[in-house]
Amino acid sequence: MSEKLFDRVALIGIGLIGSSLARALRRDSPGTSIIACARRSETLATVRRLDLADDTTNDPAMAAAGADLVVIATPLSAYAEIGRQIAPALQPGAILTDVGSVKQAVIRDLQPHLPEGVHFVPGHPVAGTEHSGPEAGFAELFQGRWCILIALPETVPDAVARVGRMWERFGMRVVTMSADHHDKVLAVTSHLPHLIAYTIVGTATDLEDSLKSEVIEFSASGFRDFTRIAASDPVMWRDIFLNNREAVLEILQRFNEDLTALQRAIRWGEGDKLQDLFTRTRAIRRSIIEAKQA
Amino acid sequence: MSEKLFDRVALIGIGLIGSSLARALRRDSPGTSIIACARRSETLATVRRLDLADDTTNDPAMAAAGADLVVIATPLSAYAEIGRQIAPALQPGAILTDVGSVKQAVIRDLQPHLPEGVHFVPGHPVAGTEHSGPEAGFAELFQGRWCILIALPETVPDAVARVGRMWERFGMRVVTMSADHHDKVLAVTSHLPHLIAYTIVGTATDLEDSLKSEVIEFSASGFRDFTRIAASDPVMWRDIFLNNREAVLEILQRFNEDLTALQRAIRWGEGDKLQDLFTRTRAIRRSIIEAKQA
Repeated sequence: MSEKLFDRVALIGIGLIGSSLARALRRDSPGTSIIACARRSETLATVRRLDLADDTTNDPAMAAAGADLVVIATPLSAYAEIGRQIAPALQPGAILTDVGSVKQAVIRDLQPHLPEGVHFVPGHPVAGTEHSGPEAGFAELFQGRWCILIALPETVPDAVARVGRMWERFGMRVVTMSADHHDKVLAVTSHLPHLIAYTIVGTATDLEDSLKSEVIEFSASGFRDFTRIAASDPVMWRDIFLNNREAVLEILQRFNEDLTALQRAIRWGEGDKLQDLFTRTRAIRRSIIEAKQA
Repeated sequence: MSEKLFDRVALIGIGLIGSSLARALRRDSPGTSIIACARRSETLATVRRLDLADDTTNDPAMAAAGADLVVIATPLSAYAEIGRQIAPALQPGAILTDVGSVKQAVIRDLQPHLPEGVHFVPGHPVAGTEHSGPEAGFAELFQGRWCILIALPETVPDAVARVGRMWERFGMRVVTMSADHHDKVLAVTSHLPHLIAYTIVGTATDLEDSLKSEVIEFSASGFRDFTRIAASDPVMWRDIFLNNREAVLEILQRFNEDLTALQRAIRWGEGDKLQDLFTRTRAIRRSIIEAKQA
């Protein structure tokens, strides 16, 4: 068997990512004891039914007490309050990490609460599906995906390395970068695509009924991919946009300029401009296939 | 064996759709003789190597002569010239159909050329991948997908039915609708999503290099789906936008308004508005899953 990663892991929030993490720990680090924390008793009942944890609680402080790894996996809007609640319970030497899709806001919300001697490693396993909740998770979710960790200047490198080894054991490729850079990269690769998908699916829901029913029937030709993205968890995504506002608005501005140029090219029948762009975008797909992300 | 669908089918244009149709005919209508027409001799050599046709030519009129079914499967910009070329060669009673993604423009470009006694059935098998060319085709491409046929007032119903039976034999579900309605539905389900995907991938290609390389690495979280769509054939898509201009610009205008509203909600931190939309869009995904298009 492989070495035990941590003695006691507290999972605060046990949706798609939290429950996948619980399953991966069960599979790859059997000696680790897991305590799951959720607000809703139905969620905790599901966790017990699926045997995803050794203990359950609705009190973040109780979950954090005695844990050598605490993982926050809730929507971002809950972080500040959770930080306030767990701070007195965190034991010296404990590592606090998270799985949030925005990193500057997470540091802003959690760092002020943390006591001396606690190691803070903001993290983002870049993996997910459009499904949510503890039943949607699976241990293989992380396989072959990237995990981005933020190495804060005040965090000892060993704590970052221990969190990294955990994600690596679950099949992830781990990189470190600054929180600012993370938020810019994810604004392009994830937040803007989701915003666009939500918008286009919303535009379709507002169509007159005769058109709307057929849009659903004939969704197979492009639209369908957008509806999958736009089926992602609403609260999680609300929080992402509110917490990565600047980077999202910046890239959205660029997108808007480019879309306006394309709109103009269509209106004026400028076929060469369209074909040039469409040829350039093919090359990006090739790069992604080469980077083995396709 | 199943009944032979046609005696001699002329495929004018033998890319992804044309070559998939050739393969489906080979599989499901073995008695049918196929003549493939393409401009480039390399394409015709590939067709012969893959044994996709019994005859090959670069002359549309030669292909059309003696065929009881002529299928145009080229980019839309070639239609008017092909119509002019094949008109004198079309035999009385022959059926002319096509596979183009826009229908009003196809009728505008082909109908004026057609001699009396030729049955014109504009069609659109709604199926495809991001790959192109005769090597990218496969007989199963049409399985379970929709085929939209336009029943023109001047076309005899039997001709529409015969084309419909062919697509049904290849596994498609066939519906008829007006060309105007088709172009509006496809503008929403296919053309706008492609335009958006091309734009966002284009926006990413213009990023500063440090960001761009990481956008490719971390593409897995939404962006990747867009790059697949934006890898579709550039000439085909140029022609679609130029030939469905009005419907695309109309839906793009609505999309822009909705995106601006969302942008404003993010800027002003209006979380409720975001969450409301994101909850509504989930319902559309459920409808699509129920319609078995997911």
